Amino acid sequence: MHMKVLIIGAGGMIGRKLSERLVREGRVAGRSIDEMTLVDVTEPTGMKPTRVEPTGRGGPTVKLVTRALDFTAKGAAVRLIDDRPDIIFHLAAIVSGEAESDFEKGYRINVDGTRDLFEAIRKAQAADGYRPRVIFASSIAVFGAPFPSVIPDSFHSTPLTSYGTQKAIGELLLTDYTRRGFMDGIGIRLPTIVIRPGRPNKAASGFFSNILREPINGQEAVLPVSEDVRHWFASPRAAVEFFVHAAGLDPDAVGPHRNLNMPGLSTTVGEEIEALGRVMGADVPKLIRREPDEAIRRIVQNWATGFEPSRARTLGFRAETSFDEIIRVYLEDELGTGA
Amino acid sequence: MHMKVLIIGAGGMIGRKLSERLVREGRVAGRSIDEMTLVDVTEPTGMKPTRVEPTGRGGPTVKLVTRALDFTAKGAAVRLIDDRPDIIFHLAAIVSGEAESDFEKGYRINVDGTRDLFEAIRKAQAADGYRPRVIFASSIAVFGAPFPSVIPDSFHSTPLTSYGTQKAIGELLLTDYTRRGFMDGIGIRLPTIVIRPGRPNKAASGFFSNILREPINGQEAVLPVSEDVRHWFASPRAAVEFFVHAAGLDPDAVGPHRNLNMPGLSTTVGEEIEALGRVMGADVPKLIRREPDEAIRRIVQNWATGFEPSRARTLGFRAETSFDEIIRVYLEDELGTGA
Repeated sequence: MHMKVLIIGAGGMIGRKLSERLVREGRVAGRSIDEMTLVDVTEPTGMKPTRVEPTGRGGPTVKLVTRALDFTAKGAAVRLIDDRPDIIFHLAAIVSGEAESDFEKGYRINVDGTRDLFEAIRKAQAADGYRPRVIFASSIAVFGAPFPSVIPDSFHSTPLTSYGTQKAIGELLLTDYTRRGFMDGIGIRLPTIVIRPGRPNKAASGFFSNILREPINGQEAVLPVSEDVRHWFASPRAAVEFFVHAAGLDPDAVGPHRNLNMPGLSTTVGEEIEALGRVMGADVPKLIRREPDEAIRRIVQNWATGFEPSRARTLGFRAETSFDEIIRVYLEDELGTGA
Repeated sequence: MHMKVLIIGAGGMIGRKLSERLVREGRVAGRSIDEMTLVDVTEPTGMKPTRVEPTGRGGPTVKLVTRALDFTAKGAAVRLIDDRPDIIFHLAAIVSGEAESDFEKGYRINVDGTRDLFEAIRKAQAADGYRPRVIFASSIAVFGAPFPSVIPDSFHSTPLTSYGTQKAIGELLLTDYTRRGFMDGIGIRLPTIVIRPGRPNKAASGFFSNILREPINGQEAVLPVSEDVRHWFASPRAAVEFFVHAAGLDPDAVGPHRNLNMPGLSTTVGEEIEALGRVMGADVPKLIRREPDEAIRRIVQNWATGFEPSRARTLGFRAETSFDEIIRVYLEDELGTGA
């Protein structure tokens, strides 16, 4: 059987890493990938549309197609599933800050775009019985304060941002479309991802990565909050593994509740910095400059400090168990070195 | 200040009772009502468009307007708020059974209709600063099994029906539109309402009312489940009181989480029947015929058995505290008698 994979939002940080991993391995959900389509609003770069020989596989090649497409444009969702991909990774989204500053755009992309995709799938099923696995990138932003110190799987979804609201709506649609048998969906509630590669950005959560990445690269970084701030983390590599693992899950084992809190690591900023010293040497954390920012402090105090993701762990999802490990993943995957 | 009230879905059971109560009292949220518009897909009957003298008020009359309008028709939501009602009760919905049998209609009315209304309000605010209180009829159908025996306010919303999904999406939108300052919304998660007046219906929950109402009226009724089935109830009168109370709440006291589990009574079918005997006489329950229905049993086993609605109670919401009281409400409000 010809196996096709579609990644929507393939140009983002996780999308790129997921694409690279699937091309490298040439397999997902226990099957060889014959064709992989990478879609984003601008054409995903870094991988040329070609036939690729997966590392050490020696079997048939993966046909790689890249497409620039606004998946919310009229008719785009229908075109995306024209060739009936078996597995769809849906990572396309307007991020938190932009969803807050541009209300209409956030709803258009994050809600209407997602619903258009699910509707296209529902209609394809009515036409020919199509029923793909759909893996949806959600976020712990579906939760809002006040929080218990450890959030159970049964905790209510009460987002305090438009982004979190839009993701929570996507989750509800995913569950209902799955329950009705139109698709086989799984929602992945990602922790905050560190260490993000690239340059410092203005996202409120950016400093969690900045205070590690910049010193590792010999640059100064600014810490805008106190060291006792606690939050919930996983590495980009763990995030990619969540999506790959979700692709192969037995739907009966997942059951009717299709959105899963992912495992992660509950860590304070102080513990982050200690790990940095341990892995990189005691001088490296000296590049962190304390510069308290009341606005960021106020945003961050509404963020979750930790989860007990029992369902995801039972289903076999895994993340890092120490911050040292998260730093080593950065060194290996971004700088090509161990430590 | 000219005070206007709009009730969307005024033709339904709760809508009619709410309309009658507001007209009778001529006041809501501590203010006199000058104008009240009752809208449903067919023109709400029972109250003539006229000026009404509220009982014992002696002040200015309420101008009553009734309109037949499909609130999901193009432009309908904008027309509904043309005269800028101060308080909007949004009770329009496709009910559970129909939302399950007609997937597209359920989403069109329950999701798109609600969003159209909220969007019209948002745009009106951009134009002239309009910001109404919006009270949204939600339901305990936003929750899905497995349940703890008593559901806390922090329990996750994992609906197992399309109706519950659509109500949960409405709740998320209501919270986000409120947080953004476009409106001042409150979502009311109604318990199962007993005793419903009228004739027995085919709704899976119908028997909870049927086994009381029919014997009270000298008719036989069918009980399709065992007597140990436990569920969460309030009377139609309590439901109306929830909406009226919500209209007058201080938004700061409600806080950012705008959807509230309403108080109710956790009762078994056996306790229902005992109450019937106490209030109506020992012979009346003999009109209940046991006729187990496996399909209904399977649906009902996924329903919530009880809540601890701490937030709503703190905010002053009240419901019946005994099933005898629920039966007496029926006798008084539907038959005009005490017992």
